Formats: sequence, structure tokens, C-alpha cells
Amino acid sequence: MFKNLTVEKFLQEVASENPTPGGGTVAAISGAMGASLISMFCRVTAKGKKYVDVKDEMERIGEEGDKIREKLLKLADEDTKAYLEVMQAFKLPKESEEEKEKRREAIELASQRATEVPLETAKEIVPLLEMVIEIAPKGNPNAISDLKVGMELCYTGFVGAVANVQVNLSTLKDQSFKKEIEEKLEVVIDRAEKAIAEGRKIIASYGYSC
Amino acid sequence: MFKNLTVEKFLQEVASENPTPGGGTVAAISGAMGASLISMFCRVTAKGKKYVDVKDEMERIGEEGDKIREKLLKLADEDTKAYLEVMQAFKLPKESEEEKEKRREAIELASQRATEVPLETAKEIVPLLEMVIEIAPKGNPNAISDLKVGMELCYTGFVGAVANVQVNLSTLKDQSFKKEIEEKLEVVIDRAEKAIAEGRKIIASYGYSC
Repeated sequence: MFKNLTVEKFLQEVASENPTPGGGTVAAISGAMGASLISMFCRVTAKGKKYVDVKDEMERIGEEGDKIREKLLKLADEDTKAYLEVMQAFKLPKESEEEKEKRREAIELASQRATEVPLETAKEIVPLLEMVIEIAPKGNPNAISDLKVGMELCYTGFVGAVANVQVNLSTLKDQSFKKEIEEKLEVVIDRAEKAIAEGRKIIASYGYSC
Repeated sequence: MFKNLTVEKFLQEVASENPTPGGGTVAAISGAMGASLISMFCRVTAKGKKYVDVKDEMERIGEEGDKIREKLLKLADEDTKAYLEVMQAFKLPKESEEEKEKRREAIELASQRATEVPLETAKEIVPLLEMVIEIAPKGNPNAISDLKVGMELCYTGFVGAVANVQVNLSTLKDQSFKKEIEEKLEVVIDRAEKAIAEGRKIIASYGYSC
């Protein structure tokens, strides 16, 4: 599992000529890193004497962040697994008509899975972006730059996950499956775009130039 | 060193109630992760038979990406170190006038360092964003979604680093030092904004909806 690699080793594996771990896995890790900073912002706030009124809420949201982080770390592994299964399917024999048909089916199924995993990653990240809107106005302003970095990492993870859905979607044959995913994608993109626009507005009010 | 922690442990440390490692360190890691995907895009391209003409260039840029990644991993550590030194300075005794003066000086010096480190992070990331413009049009389009995630991670690292410069800048007393940093910051923001706008334009031409 990628979470058990050292940061250095993980980055070396990403940088290698092997296509895995690639953008889908890194997008999930980016979301997990964003989730960590959101949890930290909540905890730094919760321990401050001035924030007694929001202590419970901040502790609760901090823990929600932990749970989503753990799910995203799992999705990081699943993304690489799904990609490798697509590669395996492409390697199936294609001599006879029967083999060709079996191979086509295997590729389609594996590609569907490789579409579902980053969609799941994108879905997990949306609540993180929505949390930022909740906590930014109530939390400790001394840690607002940490929250900003966290929010942007979540959004980068989201955008990366969506790009991976779209790449895999373009290879699918099953039109009804494709349509279903496209509809789900539209819903999450809509939610994420609203959340990031609002989150950026709140954080910009603390004053940053980019 | 953070690079020697497992991904899971590093994220746990970020999520804790301790202010370190915080946004500055995570911004540097974000840049390092982006650099890894840029290196991977170059290597995936370089090993493709269709890309013989750009093989040498891609290998060279892939290695440049490795070098910047290593620098960013060091800056991730330095950022936390600089933050801890500011905290140390605040804990100095402040009974006598002499102590007060010594403490003020120590805080100023440590805060200057805490401003220089994220500025260095931001500076290291700019060439990564500029590399994307070079390699995106020539590289293997099958890996363009990886490059997109890499570019966005670099930009997020950049934005996070700049936010950390600005936060620390606002606490400084030495006006000439402050002005010097502000001028340097303006130059890197200008280069980064140009590069990300151009990089996004090129990658959008491959078709992504967000």
C-alpha cells in the first residue's frame, strides 16, 4: 500500500517511467494531504482558549477529515490496481474470434472500474471543500494559510480525479454506463465548483495576492 | 526528515493539533509531488517509439524535475525548522529591557528566515510550471492527464508557498528587508501566473471540463 511507503520512495515511484502510480493515485493523495490540513486547522482552533464555543464542532469536523483522509489513501491504491487491470486485459490473447470477444469484454469491464475509482475519489473530496466553508469563518485566523493550502490541495485532487474519469470515460463502449457516469460527474463538478468559489472568497477576505 | 516518514505517518503529523508540519511544509511536498509527475510524463514519453526526436530533451527535463523534487523535499524540512525557530524566539525571557530587545531581535531574525524559506519554495516551483509549457505539446498524449495533475500540484504548492511568505511578511519590522522580499515575490508571482495560464491553455486543448 502506498501509504506505507516513505514520502521519498513514493515520489520516486511516481517519477519512474512506469505509468503507475500515476495521476489518479496522486490526485487521491493530494486530497488526503488537503484533508490533513483541514483536520489540523480544526484541531489548532479547538485547542485555542478563544474558541470554546466552536470546540465541539471543530473536533467533530477534524475527525470527519481523518475518516475521509483514510478513504482517500485506500482509493490511491485502488486507482493503481484498476489501471493495472486495464493493462492486464489488453494483454489477453486475441487470436480467435472468441478470444477477441473475451478480451474486448475484459477491457470494457476493467475500464469501467478505472472510471469508477477516480469518480469515487472526486466524490470523497467534495465534502472536504464544503467543510472549508463551514470552518474558515469560525476558526483560528493564525492558521488560515494552512487551511488555504489544504483547500487548494483538495481542489487539485478533485480536478485530477475528474481528469482521470474523463480519460477513461472516452475509452468506454457501454453507452448507458457512460451516460450514468457523465451525469454523476456533472453533479459532483457542480458541487465542487460552488464550494471552491465560496471557500476561496472567504479565505481571500483574509488577504492573499494569488 | 519528512521524506523518511511513511505517507500515512506524515499525514498524521500534519493532521495533529501541532502547528508543524503545516501549510509551508505541505506546499513544498505538493510541489515535489508535482515535480514527480512531470518527470514521469517525460520518461513515459522518452520510452515511446514515436518520440525518438524528443527522447534526449525529455530525459534531460525528467532529470531536472528530479533535482527540483529533491530541493523541495529539503525545503519541506527547512520550513518546519524555520517555524520552530520563530516559536523558540517568542519563548525568550522578557523581564529586563535588555532581554526584551534581544527577544525582539531574535523574533525578527527568525521571522525573516521563515519568510525566505517559502519564497525559496515558490522560486523552485516556477521552472516546473515553465517546463510544462515545453513538454505538454511534444509529449505522449496518453499521459497528459498525469501532466495536468502534476502542473496543478505545482501551482498549488506555489500558491501555498506564497501565502506563507505573505503571512510571515506581515509580522516583520525591518522595512527594507520587507520591501526586498515583496519585490522578489512580485517577480515570481508574475512568472508563475504566466506559466500556469499558458500550461492550462495547452492542456485544456486536450479536452477537460474543469
